[in-house]
Amino acid sequence: MSAKRYLFTPGPTPVPPEVLAALAEPVVHHRGPDYRSLFGECLERLRAVYRTAGDVLVFTSSGTGAMESAVANLCSPGERVVVVSAGAFGERWRNLAAAYGADVQAVEYEWGETPRPDDLRAKLEEAGGAKAVFLTHSETSTGVVADVQALAAAAKSSRALVVVDAVSSLGAVPLETDAWGLDVVASGSQKALMTPPGIGLVSVSEAAHAAVGSSPRFYFDWERTRAGQAKLDSAFTPAVSLVRGLDVALGLLLDEGLEAAFDRHVRLGRACREGAKAMGLELFSPDEDRSAVVTAILTPAGVDAGELRLALRDRYGVTVAGGHGDLKNRLFRIGHIGYYDVFDVVAALAAVELALVEAGAEVERGVGVARALEAFAPVPAGRGNA
Amino acid sequence: MSAKRYLFTPGPTPVPPEVLAALAEPVVHHRGPDYRSLFGECLERLRAVYRTAGDVLVFTSSGTGAMESAVANLCSPGERVVVVSAGAFGERWRNLAAAYGADVQAVEYEWGETPRPDDLRAKLEEAGGAKAVFLTHSETSTGVVADVQALAAAAKSSRALVVVDAVSSLGAVPLETDAWGLDVVASGSQKALMTPPGIGLVSVSEAAHAAVGSSPRFYFDWERTRAGQAKLDSAFTPAVSLVRGLDVALGLLLDEGLEAAFDRHVRLGRACREGAKAMGLELFSPDEDRSAVVTAILTPAGVDAGELRLALRDRYGVTVAGGHGDLKNRLFRIGHIGYYDVFDVVAALAAVELALVEAGAEVERGVGVARALEAFAPVPAGRGNA
Repeated sequence: MSAKRYLFTPGPTPVPPEVLAALAEPVVHHRGPDYRSLFGECLERLRAVYRTAGDVLVFTSSGTGAMESAVANLCSPGERVVVVSAGAFGERWRNLAAAYGADVQAVEYEWGETPRPDDLRAKLEEAGGAKAVFLTHSETSTGVVADVQALAAAAKSSRALVVVDAVSSLGAVPLETDAWGLDVVASGSQKALMTPPGIGLVSVSEAAHAAVGSSPRFYFDWERTRAGQAKLDSAFTPAVSLVRGLDVALGLLLDEGLEAAFDRHVRLGRACREGAKAMGLELFSPDEDRSAVVTAILTPAGVDAGELRLALRDRYGVTVAGGHGDLKNRLFRIGHIGYYDVFDVVAALAAVELALVEAGAEVERGVGVARALEAFAPVPAGRGNA
Repeated sequence: MSAKRYLFTPGPTPVPPEVLAALAEPVVHHRGPDYRSLFGECLERLRAVYRTAGDVLVFTSSGTGAMESAVANLCSPGERVVVVSAGAFGERWRNLAAAYGADVQAVEYEWGETPRPDDLRAKLEEAGGAKAVFLTHSETSTGVVADVQALAAAAKSSRALVVVDAVSSLGAVPLETDAWGLDVVASGSQKALMTPPGIGLVSVSEAAHAAVGSSPRFYFDWERTRAGQAKLDSAFTPAVSLVRGLDVALGLLLDEGLEAAFDRHVRLGRACREGAKAMGLELFSPDEDRSAVVTAILTPAGVDAGELRLALRDRYGVTVAGGHGDLKNRLFRIGHIGYYDVFDVVAALAAVELALVEAGAEVERGVGVARALEAFAPVPAGRGNA
């Protein structure tokens, strides 16, 4: 028997067997009634997960494609925008806006810091306002989940449109598209939505539709896409198999219930952090309940993170993520979004423990897993958990 | 038992069971060795199918995304390009180039006509040359397959770059990327490559790489994509499941052999046309062997093509394609690309025969199917077939 494989990366994430089975169903034509009814159901479920009464546009693309749609539709050359950046995906917003010739003002933090609404407010005042503010909800490169509600309020107070990268957060941590006044929320199929990569998603408020600019675009054009979806059609041949899988996955998520899923992710994050700390490891990502998407962990002195990841993969079939950029050899990241339960966290920590011991690190055996299981348990009423 | 369904559209096309099974395999990380080895094999197979020694860039997108990459990378505002247009997909090139602000000169034909190299040569002389010429190999809306080799030679004689939409032709009819001097060939997974929609492909010559312009782009940027692929990496999270399926499908196609596949498609087209004519139907697409991708057939007087398609679908589970634009109620299209054999053509014609009889048309029973089988048979040596 070939070795079992474990996928503990923050995207792509493991896909439930029901979703994999849906991918293997025969292909249908995208302009027939079978697909239309499936697509209509999928769009309804997306609205429920996004918590919006508005449009969620569906692109055949990665999450970056959905992000580019926001820039291509909103940013005309020379228009001022503000990007809040504290990691690789904040930098992606900046690079995208720069590629479209926007006047990009950045609120920039060290990687791993948590953006502060007051800094955004100050930047907007200093700049004399901006057409749009680009935010990252879950900065997958560092594990930080920003307080998008407060950041959006700061942007709104200067009447900027609010654009959010929620690629790794949607469905894992609370996000209220309409209630928080988020004009554009970009996401993708391959994180908490438990579907293989290939579908980019973007909700677009009426204010954002009204503010589209002059940059060239065709495939990612919002108006063309919206007009198609109004008839349960697609402007271009959609990835019908992935849409079928996404529909099944969204059904699973809504059956669990969004609040239950958010609670599960909080407890998974807690389990991962507490387990890592009990093993004597230092966290890079914040030790707080909001950061429930991915846990970034520094390797002990003398252990190269790249070599640790290779050992995990080659000896134990376990894939965790590395660090971006300068952090490549200093940390590894365990994703716990989507189709995850506490035994996945246990398996990840157990494999890390074995690999660290083999690398010569001092690790007290067994305490990480035990502490993770304890931390995952729901908090009894009245005890609280700060 | 629910009724069986038959997909006879020119994209998406039916997908072999081996490919469907590959889609259902667990998701792997796109930066791990399992995926790298799969991706490397897939890129090699793509080069074989494209018949190129150069790059084939892989995007998570529909075929239109691959087409847009050509326009976004090559067309700067105001630059002159020539588009040869004789149907819906020629118009797509024109709309794409116009969206990027190019100075678009069109060689335009009635839908259903076959472009002539002399017209392109004359247009290029009249315009004083152009940076690029945009061609459609298989015009899926009409069934015409253009002589891209001769058209490319005409473009080359004025030193224009040659850009070809081969979305529905690649793998079905002969196409020689390098030997014909095609600088850019756009295609997609969901036609003759027998994979669900979601992967856009584009080969890019060194001359095309050297000629990239100033239009904004990020997701569809060739250089970023090429740099990633050089390391068997992807600039953005790729559709790993679809790439796995595509790799299996390309293996099936190369096992059959490209020449054998081209011959099969010629005979499938012949069978479909001869069967339709034997039934007394008039062809809209050219009655010639080169047009081996899709057969467009006019409905008899008094029979609405839209109603015929509904009847085929609702009564027999058979999906054929309609006409684009003004042709919507006048014709239907039977695709015969990819995972098709003669019994698919037989089933399509048999269903059309039943539906036409029910619609009150005069059809001699059984002759269409019999003639299709006869026309599909390989031509005995020495008999020839003009």
